[in-house]
Parts: sequence; C-alpha cells; structure tokens
Amino acid sequence: MTRPRDSFPTPDDDHPGEECAIFGIFGSPDAGANTALGLHALQHRGQEATGIVSWDGRQFRSHRGLGHVADNFGAGASGVLDQVAGHAAIGHNRYSTTGGGNLRNVQPLFAETELGGLALSHNGNLTNAQDLRRSLVRRGCLFQSTTDTEIIIHLIARSPGRSQVDRIIDALHQVEGAYSLVLLTSDSVIGVRDPLGVRPLVLGRLGDALVLASETCAFDILGARFIRELKPGEMVILSDDGVESLSPFPSRPGRFCIFEYIYFSRPDSIVEGRGVYEARKAIGAELARESPVDVDIVVPIPDSGVPAAIGYSERSGIRFELGIVRNHYVGRTFIQPSDQDRHLGVRLKHSANRAVIAGKRVLLLDDSIVRGTTSTRIVEMVRAAGAREVHMRIASPPTTHSCFYGVDTPERDKLLAARFSVEEIGREIGVDSLAFVSIDGLYRAMGEAGRDARSPRFCDACFTGDYPIRLRDQEEGVAPKQLSLLSEFG
Amino acid sequence: MTRPRDSFPTPDDDHPGEECAIFGIFGSPDAGANTALGLHALQHRGQEATGIVSWDGRQFRSHRGLGHVADNFGAGASGVLDQVAGHAAIGHNRYSTTGGGNLRNVQPLFAETELGGLALSHNGNLTNAQDLRRSLVRRGCLFQSTTDTEIIIHLIARSPGRSQVDRIIDALHQVEGAYSLVLLTSDSVIGVRDPLGVRPLVLGRLGDALVLASETCAFDILGARFIRELKPGEMVILSDDGVESLSPFPSRPGRFCIFEYIYFSRPDSIVEGRGVYEARKAIGAELARESPVDVDIVVPIPDSGVPAAIGYSERSGIRFELGIVRNHYVGRTFIQPSDQDRHLGVRLKHSANRAVIAGKRVLLLDDSIVRGTTSTRIVEMVRAAGAREVHMRIASPPTTHSCFYGVDTPERDKLLAARFSVEEIGREIGVDSLAFVSIDGLYRAMGEAGRDARSPRFCDACFTGDYPIRLRDQEEGVAPKQLSLLSEFG
Amino acid sequence: MTRPRDSFPTPDDDHPGEECAIFGIFGSPDAGANTALGLHALQHRGQEATGIVSWDGRQFRSHRGLGHVADNFGAGASGVLDQVAGHAAIGHNRYSTTGGGNLRNVQPLFAETELGGLALSHNGNLTNAQDLRRSLVRRGCLFQSTTDTEIIIHLIARSPGRSQVDRIIDALHQVEGAYSLVLLTSDSVIGVRDPLGVRPLVLGRLGDALVLASETCAFDILGARFIRELKPGEMVILSDDGVESLSPFPSRPGRFCIFEYIYFSRPDSIVEGRGVYEARKAIGAELARESPVDVDIVVPIPDSGVPAAIGYSERSGIRFELGIVRNHYVGRTFIQPSDQDRHLGVRLKHSANRAVIAGKRVLLLDDSIVRGTTSTRIVEMVRAAGAREVHMRIASPPTTHSCFYGVDTPERDKLLAARFSVEEIGREIGVDSLAFVSIDGLYRAMGEAGRDARSPRFCDACFTGDYPIRLRDQEEGVAPKQLSLLSEFG
Amino acid sequence: MTRPRDSFPTPDDDHPGEECAIFGIFGSPDAGANTALGLHALQHRGQEATGIVSWDGRQFRSHRGLGHVADNFGAGASGVLDQVAGHAAIGHNRYSTTGGGNLRNVQPLFAETELGGLALSHNGNLTNAQDLRRSLVRRGCLFQSTTDTEIIIHLIARSPGRSQVDRIIDALHQVEGAYSLVLLTSDSVIGVRDPLGVRPLVLGRLGDALVLASETCAFDILGARFIRELKPGEMVILSDDGVESLSPFPSRPGRFCIFEYIYFSRPDSIVEGRGVYEARKAIGAELARESPVDVDIVVPIPDSGVPAAIGYSERSGIRFELGIVRNHYVGRTFIQPSDQDRHLGVRLKHSANRAVIAGKRVLLLDDSIVRGTTSTRIVEMVRAAGAREVHMRIASPPTTHSCFYGVDTPERDKLLAARFSVEEIGREIGVDSLAFVSIDGLYRAMGEAGRDARSPRFCDACFTGDYPIRLRDQEEGVAPKQLSLLSEFG
Repeated sequence: MTRPRDSFPTPDDDHPGEECAIFGIFGSPDAGANTALGLHALQHRGQEATGIVSWDGRQFRSHRGLGHVADNFGAGASGVLDQVAGHAAIGHNRYSTTGGGNLRNVQPLFAETELGGLALSHNGNLTNAQDLRRSLVRRGCLFQSTTDTEIIIHLIARSPGRSQVDRIIDALHQVEGAYSLVLLTSDSVIGVRDPLGVRPLVLGRLGDALVLASETCAFDILGARFIRELKPGEMVILSDDGVESLSPFPSRPGRFCIFEYIYFSRPDSIVEGRGVYEARKAIGAELARESPVDVDIVVPIPDSGVPAAIGYSERSGIRFELGIVRNHYVGRTFIQPSDQDRHLGVRLKHSANRAVIAGKRVLLLDDSIVRGTTSTRIVEMVRAAGAREVHMRIASPPTTHSCFYGVDTPERDKLLAARFSVEEIGREIGVDSLAFVSIDGLYRAMGEAGRDARSPRFCDACFTGDYPIRLRDQEEGVAPKQLSLLSEFG
Repeated sequence: MTRPRDSFPTPDDDHPGEECAIFGIFGSPDAGANTALGLHALQHRGQEATGIVSWDGRQFRSHRGLGHVADNFGAGASGVLDQVAGHAAIGHNRYSTTGGGNLRNVQPLFAETELGGLALSHNGNLTNAQDLRRSLVRRGCLFQSTTDTEIIIHLIARSPGRSQVDRIIDALHQVEGAYSLVLLTSDSVIGVRDPLGVRPLVLGRLGDALVLASETCAFDILGARFIRELKPGEMVILSDDGVESLSPFPSRPGRFCIFEYIYFSRPDSIVEGRGVYEARKAIGAELARESPVDVDIVVPIPDSGVPAAIGYSERSGIRFELGIVRNHYVGRTFIQPSDQDRHLGVRLKHSANRAVIAGKRVLLLDDSIVRGTTSTRIVEMVRAAGAREVHMRIASPPTTHSCFYGVDTPERDKLLAARFSVEEIGREIGVDSLAFVSIDGLYRAMGEAGRDARSPRFCDACFTGDYPIRLRDQEEGVAPKQLSLLSEFG
Repeated sequence: MTRPRDSFPTPDDDHPGEECAIFGIFGSPDAGANTALGLHALQHRGQEATGIVSWDGRQFRSHRGLGHVADNFGAGASGVLDQVAGHAAIGHNRYSTTGGGNLRNVQPLFAETELGGLALSHNGNLTNAQDLRRSLVRRGCLFQSTTDTEIIIHLIARSPGRSQVDRIIDALHQVEGAYSLVLLTSDSVIGVRDPLGVRPLVLGRLGDALVLASETCAFDILGARFIRELKPGEMVILSDDGVESLSPFPSRPGRFCIFEYIYFSRPDSIVEGRGVYEARKAIGAELARESPVDVDIVVPIPDSGVPAAIGYSERSGIRFELGIVRNHYVGRTFIQPSDQDRHLGVRLKHSANRAVIAGKRVLLLDDSIVRGTTSTRIVEMVRAAGAREVHMRIASPPTTHSCFYGVDTPERDKLLAARFSVEEIGREIGVDSLAFVSIDGLYRAMGEAGRDARSPRFCDACFTGDYPIRLRDQEEGVAPKQLSLLSEFG
Repeated sequence: MTRPRDSFPTPDDDHPGEECAIFGIFGSPDAGANTALGLHALQHRGQEATGIVSWDGRQFRSHRGLGHVADNFGAGASGVLDQVAGHAAIGHNRYSTTGGGNLRNVQPLFAETELGGLALSHNGNLTNAQDLRRSLVRRGCLFQSTTDTEIIIHLIARSPGRSQVDRIIDALHQVEGAYSLVLLTSDSVIGVRDPLGVRPLVLGRLGDALVLASETCAFDILGARFIRELKPGEMVILSDDGVESLSPFPSRPGRFCIFEYIYFSRPDSIVEGRGVYEARKAIGAELARESPVDVDIVVPIPDSGVPAAIGYSERSGIRFELGIVRNHYVGRTFIQPSDQDRHLGVRLKHSANRAVIAGKRVLLLDDSIVRGTTSTRIVEMVRAAGAREVHMRIASPPTTHSCFYGVDTPERDKLLAARFSVEEIGREIGVDSLAFVSIDGLYRAMGEAGRDARSPRFCDACFTGDYPIRLRDQEEGVAPKQLSLLSEFG
C-alpha cells in the first residue's frame, strides 16, 4: 500500500532538512480545501507525507497520505476534499526521514480522549522525548507511532485538567524542546509556540476565518491577511469567540531559528517583520564586504543561493549570471549505467551553463555546506565547463554542530566544518578560495550590531554550539538522533 | 492509499458473515511464509484485509494490507515475505465490515509494552467492550482503532502483572464475550479460547514447529499434523520449551458456535472430531426425513448448499443435479444498464442451468436464510428457466436472533424469520413449499439425541435466543452493533 | 502501465486453454454495458485481457485492458461504461498466453479503412497466418500486433471490394483455419463462422436488439433469448434491417470442436441443442459402462470433473462425494518457503477432504489429462489423506495431438498421451487403475452411434490426429506454435 | 490503464507548447540508459509521455509510458532499463496534447517492414499530412495512431527502394513540413532535418558512441561532446562505420525556428553556436534600448523571463529583483473551494514577493504573450502586493499567427495579438505601459543587422505570417489543427 521510497525527492545531502509545515484554520466553510492550499504553499518544508484532519460540527474527518499535497488533495484525487469537509481543520507536511516512510507516523495525529477528539500537528523536536516515552510506557501507554508528537497526545489524555486547554498546558509543562503546535478540538483550533519560539508560527485572517501557518506564504496563496507572529511561549485559541491569547509560560526573550532565514523559509515569506529574500540578499552583501574576491561573474547555486548572489553582485558590482541551470523535473533518481560516472548525481539536478562560464573567473554562492559532497561535484562541473578560476562564498557560518530542535542535520562527525578548517574545506571541495559569512556578519545582516554572546537574538546552535534548550535525551545518552526523525517500530 | 471499497466481494446478504481467521506458528524458519499460506487456506473467513506480524529474534516485523492474502503476500508482492521474516509469526484475515475499510483496524494489532512488544489477532466479539473502552478512555488511554481487540491490548499494557502471561490472564478476566486469540511475544506464541469455547482454535505440528489456526484446513495446506482442539477456556503457550497448557478460567462445559458447522467452516475442516462436510450432509439427510417432498431433482444453491443437497439426495433417493451454476469470477459488481432488470445482481453470481431445470419439479437446498432477498431472486430465476414447481429446504433452523459473539448478522428487525412465520417466508420468496430443519433435527445431525434445553451442547442463540454469555453492552443500550464490526473514528 | 503478469490466474497445466470469447450486440441503447455483462458471463474463456469497441452513431469508442471484465468494466471502474456508450458494440476476452501480456494484442482490434472504421473480435486460429503475413509485409503492410487477427483486418483494408461486407468475404476467402468472428462497422454488427464451424457462435435477441456470443450463457445473464446457432460458413449481418444471412462458402458438413463439450463451455450453456452439463454427465455414464471399477466413492476433481462424476455415480450406483475441495481464492501464486514441498502448487488450489476419503477406495473423475503433472500431485494428496485405493477415469480420450485451431495445447512432445500408453500413464500418475473414455464412447455420449471415420461429426483432431483443415504453416515449418498464441514483436 | 489526465502539468496557456524531444545513440553498451538520461535532460520539451526503442543485436526492445522520463525509466521503475538494453537506441518525449493521452500515440513508433524492424521519433509537423493519410488509407493502409509520424512509417514501408535508407529518402520526398527525425534500424541510427532545418538536431560523441539530440543539454548530462548541428536537409547515418552524411535535398538557406531561442530551448543549450541564455539576455538588452521606462526594479516572470530581465537590468542599470516566486511543486491542479477566487490558478504557480514589491514601480519581463490570461492575473497579483506602478516588457514580438510546424499555438482568433493592438493589450492586462521587442530588435539580438524580408534567417511566421513551407492541409481546408496535435481515433 505504500509508494516506493525512491519516488520522493532525495533531500540534498549538502543541506539540512526541515521537519515539517503546520497549518490550521477556524471558521471557514471550506476549511479542508483551505488547508490543502496552505499546505501546498508550504510544500518546501516537507515532501514525504501530508495530512489533514477536519471537524464538520458532527465528526472529525481525515485523510493522510505519502507524497505531495497536490497528489493527495489535488484535483485528481477526486472526492478527497469531501473527506476533510468542515469549518475547522489542521494540516501537516512531513519531511522525508531516513528509513521506510510509514503512514502511522503521518500527522496530524488524532486521538479520542475523555474530553473528546483531539488532533495535533507538530513542527520541532522534544529534547526529553525518550525520558517521557519510557515513563509513559511504564504506566501502560501504548504508542502507535514513533513520533515525539504522540508523547504530547498521551500527556494530554492522561492529564487531570478540567478542560482540553488546561490539559494541553499541563502536558506542555512536562515537555522540553522546540515546538510549534496546531491542535484541533471540536470547538477550536489552538496554536502554541515553545517558550523560546524556536520554530515559527504566524496568525492571519481570511474573511471571517482565522488562520495559523508556519509561514506567511501560506496566507498569500489563500488571499489571507497576515496579522502577527505568535510570541514565544504564547498559546492562541481560535474559536467562535475569535482569538484568545494565553501565556502559559514565564516571559523570556525568544531565540528564533536563524536557519529559517538562511535556507528553510520561502523567499517570499515575511519573518519577524522582514522579507526572507531581503535577509538573504543582506547576507550576500555582508559576504561581499567581508570576503571580496576579484572575479568576472557571480553565479548562484540554484535555487537557494540566488538571493545571496544578487546581494553579493549588487554590493560588489560584479555581474550576476545564471551560470548553473537547475532541472526541475528531478523526482525519482536514475540508476547510473556505470560506476565510472560519479558526476551523474549532480548533473541530474544541475547543469553548468557552458556559454556563460567558459573562460571566466567564477564566484559560486551557496547558502550552506553540510557534508560538502554536492559542492565538490558542482565545482568539478564548473571547471569542466571551462571556468578559469572557481571561488566560493557561503551565506552562513560553518555548520559545526548538529541541531536537536527539529532540523535534520547529520551527526556531528559527518559535518564537514566540525572536522576541518575553512582552508581545509576549500581544498576538499577544490575551490581557489572559500569564505563563510562570519557569525557577527550574519547578525549584522539580520539588523543587529553583531552577536551578543550573553543574550543572542537567535538560536544559532548549529554554528556556535550554544544550545538554548537543555538536551536531556542527549545528556542521558538515550538518543543518538532526534526522536522526531526515527521511523517504524521494532 | 486505499483500494476502492467495491473491489472486494460483497458479502452475500442472505448469509451471515464471519469475523475473521487467526493463525500462529512458533519454531519454523519460514514462520512468515507459513502464516501467509495458512491465512490463504482460511481466506473464506475474511476477505477485506489481512496482516502478519513476525518476530525474527531481534525485532518485530509486519505487513498489513487491504484485500486478499494472495494479493498481499503472494508471488507478485515481491519482497513482502522478507518483511515478515522470522521464526515466530501470527496472522489475521478480516471480514468485510460495513463502512470504509481502514488499515488502522487491520490486525494483528501491535503494541510496545513495558515488558516488550506484543501482537494480537482476535476472532470473536467482546460483549462488554463499550463499558471497558469508556473506562479506559477515562483513565487516559488513547485508542487508535475502533476494534474491541485494542481493548484487550490496553488491558494487558496496564496490568500490574509480573509477566506478559500474567498480564494477558489479568486482562482476559476483565473481558466478557466470545474470543479466540493468538498472541505473539518475543519468546512465544500464545493461543486462548474464551471460557465457553464459542469460537474455534486448533493446535497442530509442522516438523519441529507448533501451529495454531481457526480451522484444520490451514494445517492441510502446510502439510502440518492436527494435534487437538484447544479446550474452552484453555491457554496454550508455544515456545522453545514446547507446548505449555494453562487453565486460567474455572472449568465449564463449552458452547461451540453451531453456525461453524452450518456455514462458516470449510467443508474439508474437521471440527470436534467431525468433518464439516459430513455434518452438512447429515443435516440434509435430516431434512429429507423431516420434510420430504415429491420432486424430480434436488438442486443446491452453490457452493454452501451442496453437501446438504447431496445428503438430502442420498437419503431421499431423488436425483442430485447442479441446476444452478456459480460464476467464480465475480469480484467487483457491475452497474446495471437500466433499473428494469432487478435480477442482474443474482445473475452475476448464479445462473440457472436451463437444460437441467426446464419442465422439472425442483427442490432447492440452501444453508440458511437471513434477509431472504437473494432467495427470492433465485427462485424467480429457476422458475424463468422453466421449473414446473420450486420447493426449498434450509439446512438450519430459522435465524430469529442476532449474533453478538462475532458473527455479522443483521439487526433483529432485518431478520426475515424474526418477523414472519415459515409459511409467510415461503410466500415471500415465492416457493411452492418451504421447510427449515428443526432445532432438534439439527442437534440430531450433530450426533446428539436432540437439544438439551438445560445444557445445550452448542451456542445456538441465533436460532433460540438463548445467549450463553451476558450481553452487557446491549443491556446498557450502549451498542446497537457489535463493536468489532464498527469502523473508523468520529 | 501493465499489471504484473503473475496477477492473473495461471492456466492449469493439466488442461488445454481456450483462446477467447467473442460478443456483439446491435440495436440496444446500452450496447456497451450489455457487452460488458456478456463478456463477464464468458470470463471462463479468457482471463488475460478484455476489450469493447462501440459505435455511438457518430464515432467509435473503445476501452481495452489487462485483467478481468469486472476489473475493467465493473462498478469500480467509474466512467468506463461511458467510454463505450453506443447502440452497437462488440467485445472480446483474451486467454492468458505465454510471454508478457501486452495491450497491443488486446482485441477487439480497430482500424480506419477507406470505407470507414472497422472493429474485429476473433476466436480461433488461422493455419496459413505466417504465409499471409509475410506476403502482406512484403507489400508494405505494417503490423501493430502479433495476432493473426490483424491479418484479417489488413486483408479487408486492401480488398478492392465495393462494400465492407464484400471486402470481408474477400478476405475470408484468403484465410484458412478455424474462426468465429464478430465485426463492428458504422451500420452493422457482423458474425461469421468458418466453413467447418469449428468454433462456436450463437445468435439471440434482447428486446429489439440482436446479440451474438460464443455461448448461450452470455444470453442468460442479459435475459436475452437464444434464437439459433450460426451454421458452419454462415455470415449474419445485424443492422437496422434486422438479421440478414449470407452463405459465402460452399455448403459442407460442420466439424464442431468436441472439446467445447468436454471442458471449455460453461455447464449451463446449450450447444447444438444440448446442455453441456448433460453431455458431460453422459460421458461419465459412458465411462461407468466402459470401465467399471469396484470402489466406495466417486470423487470429482473440481470443478470441471463434477458433471462426469455425477453421471458415473448415477450409472454405477456408487456414492458421489466431494472428496476434494477447491479454493476459489487462488489468483496470484505463492512463493514456496522451501523447495522440499513440491505439493504446495496443487494444495493452493485443491484440498483433500480427509474425513470423506480416509479408509476409502476412491475413484477420481477428471475431464482430461494433458501434461499429467497436476494429476500426479492430486493422487499423492488423496493417498496422503488416507485413501485405501485410488483409481482414475478421464472423461475424454487420450490427448495425443496438438490443436492448431485456437486451443492452447502443449507441443506434441509434451503431451503425456503422445508418449505413453494408458498403462504407463497410470503408473506415472500413481493410480491403481486408469481409463479414458473411448473415442466411440465419447461419440455415443454425444448421441451418435460411434465415430464415423469417413465423416466424423466433430473436430476431434486432438484425440485422433485427423485435422479437418489443412495446416499450411506447420507444413511449411514456419510456425512451431499457433500465431494467435504468440506475443510481442522482436 | 491510463493515469488521469490531470496528473500532468497543464501547459501554461500564456505560452506556446513544444511538440517533443528526440534522441538517439549508436555504439554504447548502455544505449537505453543513455537515452533515458538524454530524454530526462530534454524533459522541458515534452511531459506527457516518453518512450525508448533499443536494438540489442538480436531483437528490438521497447518501453513507452505516460508521464515523465524519471517516472518511467528512473531508479524506481525496476527492471525497465533491462527492457531497453542494447547498443543502439532512440527515444522521444511527447508534449501534452489536448484530449486524452493515449499510449498508441506515444513515440518512438515501431514497425516491422519487409527490410526489418524500424523505429522512428519525430519532432515537428507535416503540412500535407491529411492529404497523404487519405491517399494511404485509400490504398489499404491501416493507421494505428493519429500521429503524422505514422504517415512517414507507412511511406517507408511501401517504398520500392532497395535499402532502408533509400526508402526513407523516398518517403521524405513525399512529405512537406517541418521535421527532425531520429530512426533506428538493426544496423544504424539515422538523423534527418527537414530541408529548411526548422526544428533542431545536434550531433555529439560519447566515448566511442555517436549521439543525436534535440539540444546540447542532453549531451551535457551524459558528459558527451558536442560535434556540430545537422545542416538543413542533411541526413546522417550512425553505424559501425562511423558517421555518414547524405544530402537528399537540394541545398537552400535554412529557416531555424526563432522561438527555440525565445522560449523552448533550455538556457544552457547552445544553438547555432550561441548560448540560449546569452541570446535571451541580448533580447532583454534590446528591449531596454527600444522601450526604456523609469521604474525601481526589474522583475522577471519566472522561469522563462529571467535571462531577459537580467539583460534588461544590466543594460538599463535598474535593479534586478526576484519579485515573483515560482512554486516548483505544482503538478496536479487543485479544485478551487469557491468560484470567488479567480486568482487561485496563478497563485498555485506564482507568488508575489510582497516585501520586494510593495511601494515600488515594477517592470515585469516575460518571454511572450499568447492568450494573455496569465499575464492579467500576475499583474493583478503584483498590484495587490503593493506595487505603485506595473509596466511590462515582452522578449518577443506580438504573436499574431499560429504555427503549423510543430508548435502548439492556439488558433489565430485566440491569439491576443491577432485581435488587438499593443495599446489595447496593455489595457486588457492592466499595465501602466507595455512594449514588445520589435522584429528587427529580435534579429539584432540574434546578431543580425535586422530582419531581411527577402531572405529572413529564421522561421518567424508566428510574428510575421511569412510561412516558409507551404500549408497544403490548411489551404485545402482539411485540417483546422496540426495533425501532430490530434489524439485518438473516431
């Protein structure tokens, strides 16, 4: 019953992977269809699986499936929108994890509790998940999935609280980690951000309906109006009474994930009042200032390197050229006819624009380097296309630490920058020069004076190792990986 | 991800429907493949869905799917047998329920408990399921399926018992109803029958391995040897130590489901030391004795009426003829080109053998009448083929009561015999004469002197209304239907 | 785009295989739907693929697919009946051939000719196909399929005749072999039988519409009335003018395929005025007369051996018992867990009814023996179930010759009876005694005095080697197999 | 057996649609796999269907399917590359036509001719197709597809020529129109361009193998080396003897399709010695010179408008910004929840980057306007995102005429520029100003002094109505559409 694993795009091993997208809407006659569109606009945050749970005033309805939103809820999937009819709905896109994709792990999760049905979509990762799970199993809880999300559901179901909201708050006081949640009950859609606001969640309005989404681009596709971001630690309850805001956690300054700016968010999304595209251009400009180089053309590695390359070009005055073309038809991979051709992998996705590159000194702009394998191949391809020199600038600092807050990064010993100096990395990938933006440069591009080490404005643990939330499972050695990335029982 | 509902055979509305088949094996290098074959031989007990969970010494493995065993585990489903590799395995075939088929309800259910993984296959129905479920939900249990089977798993997980076996017994002391269970743990396969032994379960041996199955025909396909039936209320533990038998319930005389003889079991299965085919022939002979009729030929309604017709023919000396042919290619139904033709439904499955029937006085033999709709159409078809007279004999007493022990019968007011006399039924279906075997005649065919009203040897509640197990959910009015037949949340 | 080959039932290697079913209807508002039902009733004649072409007064419409009629045209295949809307239609079921099933070979074939569109369904095999094909290719004809049917279409398209009917007759004068054809033009449905009437074709009426089919059972499912069989060499034209009958070939006595009685036709079909079921019973009775044996029970090998066993039992007075049960859920095959078990293949389909057989002297009745492999396994199974003696009677003479008229028999050196005497065959399959009905006995069962060697009433070449139609391709050594059984180019 | 039509990307109705991609390779051990990769790189030229025919030295092998190359020949389609094993192969990608996609029309077409097997891939359209087809049907030819490509095959099969090459040349002398062909015989791969070289075809080398493709980007993915373009009217024969070049047509100056530069070809392909990306930048620069405008930012409509926008920005000094983001996950369409939202269609694909656009005077750059519907929506979206002014520049002249040489343009009365002046079009799509590049400007961007009306260097009929090849079918009124765009018989 499952589509083969390889029918989904393989996450590029030179980029970290986002966990997921979440979405919720209350008060629309087409809540299920609205959710499908919102999830479609958020497809970049998760391609493995998608799901919607709706409430039609009488019962909860749901559809979940492996694959893309359009494959599951598009025009070809006749009747499926009826399956999620209702005036309130929540949805989820799941990132491609290692191991066999499995429908049991596809969110939103749903449970019948003593106080009625409850559905939950989660973006993030709990850092005391193993601890909580063990304790719940000891008390007779049965887990159906391997997601940390189910832990939250069990904690809610077992809470002695008088109302669903009380129980949700009770449950959240027990969990640690990074999370943005959207929940659906029979009379409300509820949104919550963790106390540090590491993962995003925004509030909007579509006619009379209220909307929650991971990014503002989900509002744009609906024609919805952006109202505001949820505050770190804030809970909002969307119901027939409008929006109610609660603050179940003590007030603290937030630590939003800076990688949302660098790579995850769509360039047309607006985060903390700022366009993501503009932020990326600013990083590019900062790179031009910090690490200038004498070249003929600035060439982005598409698509994520484009805004930084435009920013670099504008600041430096060096010509911007689309010297690498991306093939957007890649889906399945191909079997290589012979092992001699180790460049096929990169050529399926990228192609050097020979006429632009030949004879030029080229500066390649990319957003980040994680493992470095793709970078190496691209540099070889650009040289083979006749570049005289190949330099590289990276629109983020060296990624030296793994994320434990919901981003799929390799373990530390697989991170190129955790093992090598910048100079060594440059040699490894074969460029004439290499530079990363500095951590202070990155903060400057975000409009700060630099990084305030005592109270940084962002979560930048992947660059600094400064983890703002305790890593209990890691400390206890029970979880080499984030639980939210595991799959399948047994 | 789901095959359309109509791709499975529609249960004939003139027959009750069985719940399921269960199977387990311990100690075979090919336990998963053995289970697939055993389930294939038991396909008649459930066609909607099938599943296997195995233990390979290191982890539990599983595959479940909608549709037939051969579709899910046959040669075309490449690699799927590897998915259920191991030396111990259990399996389940699910009967087609009303409502949308759903993978979450497909057994065996699996749960990680404090004492390790546990898988469970169930044939039967709990009569205090709603009561137990409500109480478990109140205590924070989350239900993933709508099956009563999951109640048993939650009770096991919450039991304070020291071992899995203790916890299983503890759980079973809380449930009421009819059940045969096969469970899989990391060191054993466990079989249990309810205290009255309403549903079947047999023990066999395949080389060094031990086998449990709903019927002996599952042993035959494997070349396994039948050892014995489990006793009512018996629990057997198959492990490296061989077979251990426990008696967790006080000893009582059993009440085996008499409908297993009449319709459910395969004619080549041996039940309580007796061939099912022979038992059916004996009922036919009893009918010939009780309700003789002067006709030219005895014609079974295939396939279930064939043995009784042979028995009737032998006893009466009236010629046995295959006057109705069954089309075995029926799967999906067809859309009728126009509504004028109300006979199409029956013609898709059955065809009158005109050359045999024309001009004859015909006695039709069927195993049971539940709603009577198919019977009416068949009689019309036989008359249209030129029969001079059409009589009918039924190899069971009138079905006047619903089953609550795991057989899918309509609610009482839809049972023809609950509303009408035999004479009225005969008029309704348009026969020249109609007779059912008497309840005493049925017992005689089973080798008894007749039905002992104080201590009947079988569960015959569907004919007598004498329910041997308390119907708590019905008494409390919480369950119009058997929980095991519901589907989907919401 | 193709379903895997193994998802279709493997033809039993102990039976010959039929080529196909054909059907046509003119003058019904639901011609496409009628055709689907007719093909469904004829499903036993071909399970690999099915197709319908209709004419809606404006255009030809078609749908073809691999698999069963119900899978392609049943209720689940929404909209597909609209695809074959119209008031005239023809259809075809294709038998499972060796090699990859391919849609290009799925009939009805369709072509646009100078005189308009033309669709054609064919049951049979041309014996000068290779010759004709080579000559057509030499003249620039392009073949899209590997069927001999396409040869007929090309001959029609190239004919200088003034009308489609003239061109069809012209084409048929060039072909040799066995064929029943149904053709669709924009104003008629045309049926033809070859000059010897080897393959069947019957004419009926459904209200105002006229119907053609391979067997009468296709009329019964529609509620249509049987009118008559087409005469050998007759062509009928169904149009707005009713039925017109032509005789394009000189009158000769027919040679209908006797194997239609023995195995292919459905038992409820009426052939040459006689019920197939009755004919099979008569062969069984003849066997009882010719080859009596002292046993306790007569057991058919289901399903095709049942009528002969009833006939044998009636004539001999020996009890008829269903000692072998057939599993109707077989579709895909299973992979054997180990090679030790060479009996699995037969057990997937058949199961010995141990309670009936144990301790008995058993007479097995089967319709034919081709390769003998299944027979051997069944005998072993019956012995393992405890039979004291196992005898076998076969309701046809020894199959000593291959068919070249559209029946899929193995090449001669694979036919058991071509290589061994009856006694040797009996030893090979391990029975205590074996007898086939004699060729004269077979003719007697058909109501003849015996076989008239100078002018036999049937084509019985597979038993006698007396081929009534010249085998040109075989004589010229160009076709080891019948062209109608080949698949795929290359 | 067919995937629903809507599972393929709907061609943007504001762009013309290309017909297809062709590819061939001779002398590689992995010819089938090479072809799959080449077709993948050419996926932008046709997404509806794809196919490969190979020759393995013994037989022709083939696989064709609806959908993308990667779906049909990628790693998930196990075994399919074995199906096209061989040392020579040709392939084809088919553009999405109106009407039901049908496998019979999927190329390469294959035929067995008197001189052996022959496969053919075609890019283009014959302008005397109806004429030829009618004449062939009159002579008894049977057409299996509705493609004009099949006409060529029939002409070859009927030719009296002594060799396949003679027969191909003979056939091509009978056809009129635009075509690039790749053919496969049992000893060669043959490439041909029509006498005017309207459609592209390039020759390359991969190790010892020789390669033909529609564009050079297919060489890059393989690591093959570009040798040269085929000359107009040239035929090359790739065989064990290397490349043989024939000139079957009298020498004339070519008329290459100028739309290949504007839209069809991939930006990294090199056409007539010039990079497509550079050519598009040059058109953008020409636009900046011809039609300057005082705005804040230059924004391309992605992806095809990007190079022209970069060229415009460079020439004008106005900032280039990605003010519109394209969603690359669009595949299936979505059903609109309500009809009120007429902007959904465009929003599924494009999103205005509000932070970039708000408050700005925006110049939108697009490659062409065909119907204008998408342009209107995009302008509205950009205004809704807060643009102060919206201007538009188009990197081609007004499209005033339909193409009959293989490009899918609407009929003339649906072409916006055929009915309205530039000023009216500007009002229709709601921009503050609109300009197209002039025809002379376009030729200047191609390195010419301007368009030489007596002997233009390109086919520019869609802009000028100057059709270089006679339109016989149109003149005779027999073909309102190009035959190569029709589908299905009837």
